[in-house]
Amino acid sequence: MRTDAVSNHYCHFFDDAAFHETERPGFRRRVITGEHLQLCFWRIAGGATGSYLHHHTDHEQLGVLVRGQLDFRIGEPDELERVVLSAGDCYLAPRDVWHGDSVFIGDDEFGECWILDVFAPPRDDLRNQDTLGTR
Amino acid sequence: MRTDAVSNHYCHFFDDAAFHETERPGFRRRVITGEHLQLCFWRIAGGATGSYLHHHTDHEQLGVLVRGQLDFRIGEPDELERVVLSAGDCYLAPRDVWHGDSVFIGDDEFGECWILDVFAPPRDDLRNQDTLGTR
Repeated sequence: MRTDAVSNHYCHFFDDAAFHETERPGFRRRVITGEHLQLCFWRIAGGATGSYLHHHTDHEQLGVLVRGQLDFRIGEPDELERVVLSAGDCYLAPRDVWHGDSVFIGDDEFGECWILDVFAPPRDDLRNQDTLGTR
Repeated sequence: MRTDAVSNHYCHFFDDAAFHETERPGFRRRVITGEHLQLCFWRIAGGATGSYLHHHTDHEQLGVLVRGQLDFRIGEPDELERVVLSAGDCYLAPRDVWHGDSVFIGDDEFGECWILDVFAPPRDDLRNQDTLGTR
């Protein structure tokens, strides 16, 4: 998956070392922050636990499934129906929309679920995870 | 790649019919527009031509490679160096940064290059391609 990488200020090459562990075991992420948007690239071990239902009052969130599957809830907190997303599926959570309570199903190659979360505007609490500062 | 899709207002399942041809042969896209960001999911046939160097004066652009490879230029227009991105690589083009002049290399499964472009704020010229209106 590595390319013939050249140094380029605007490009961020896939790099296993750029994914940082979080406080939740099995959850690794890489954050890239721009002016108006912020990418949070998740690599989550299949079966990892710790997802809870939450919402963002000031941030819109787009999520795209790249590997594995995400079995989660999105909508009203008392909505019981679960949704299963696979590679190529996505969700768009406007501000204040509840989502989470997720079960992560790993893919065949890495045993991981890869989710590209994009926040707009960027979240201040993720900036300290930003990989730009360590490049 | 299809899931056991249930109807959900916030989820957008992978659907071949949701990708629309553009004026450039070999370029299909699906657009999903939010309040602060907009996803343009590209499926571009390997070898498709028509990419030119351009920039966006009012929009930040994140691009993530999902399948295939993108051999392109990003930076100053007189910068000759090309960059090759593969699956898992991404670029972040701030406003006014030139990019394009792209060569698209298809993947083994579809013969396509899949790029997730996310614009913030949303581009008005892409709203008429929005799949939300046709769901």
